[in-house]
Amino acid sequence: MKDAFMQEAIALAVENVRQGRGGPFAALVVKGSAVVARGTNRVTTAHDPTAHAEVVAIREACRALGDFQLNGCDLYTSCEPCPMCLGALYWARLDRVFFAASRQDAAAAGFDDAFIYDELCRPLDARSVPLVQRLSEAGQRPFEVWAAYEGRVEY
Amino acid sequence: MKDAFMQEAIALAVENVRQGRGGPFAALVVKGSAVVARGTNRVTTAHDPTAHAEVVAIREACRALGDFQLNGCDLYTSCEPCPMCLGALYWARLDRVFFAASRQDAAAAGFDDAFIYDELCRPLDARSVPLVQRLSEAGQRPFEVWAAYEGRVEY
Repeated sequence: MKDAFMQEAIALAVENVRQGRGGPFAALVVKGSAVVARGTNRVTTAHDPTAHAEVVAIREACRALGDFQLNGCDLYTSCEPCPMCLGALYWARLDRVFFAASRQDAAAAGFDDAFIYDELCRPLDARSVPLVQRLSEAGQRPFEVWAAYEGRVEY
Repeated sequence: MKDAFMQEAIALAVENVRQGRGGPFAALVVKGSAVVARGTNRVTTAHDPTAHAEVVAIREACRALGDFQLNGCDLYTSCEPCPMCLGALYWARLDRVFFAASRQDAAAAGFDDAFIYDELCRPLDARSVPLVQRLSEAGQRPFEVWAAYEGRVEY
């Protein structure tokens, strides 16, 4: 853990706001002592609700390394990852995550991170966005085809 | 809710496997009776751990509509969204979600959806990926700059 990486993430987040590029968030993917990729929030300017700093940094790091996983890498982010970004870093198999501000700090600044955490941990029928299951039997078919497909690449 | 949209999502997921494009998942963003965007899982072929069907469909729908939110749209997905995708659809402000297979079905097929749900709902110090807070005071600075920035676009 190097505080210099976190200081860079925080400085990038401040700069991202001042340049009008998006929300007050930035992240770095680090391998050993080298920065593999940087990302800042671009939701409003890229018209992409998934363009959070962590997702941008993870996508860029995978592009740089030519891989779909980031084993051996750490993430430094100016704020605790929201559930979307936390899910992304699990799928990317990052080793460790360092964050500065908390989800409560983000909530106080007007962002929905804490709300979405609460939602995700509720049963489906208690959420504010309705999630309805349909055609559950037909929905098994893609998994059956996957299990039988010899060329499948697992992730 | 139209079962035809779900049937299309399931068929796209099957085709995605057979074409070797990625995992057994597909999703549609629908507005009224029109499909705004389609997405299939491209994680392994695009070298992008965030290229889940729902994220791909949401990003494409936002591109098509020139907006960073999808109010008034529904999502049809062949499988219950993982935490990353569920977070993405909250940020995108989708109205409703319809899914066919469940997170348990995905787990049985070898995917980590259920595991990641369990992780997200745990306290930080009980998770399998370490999350460590550092420089929490300095981490407030981006939010202070955001609050003072008159040109900010909230999301």
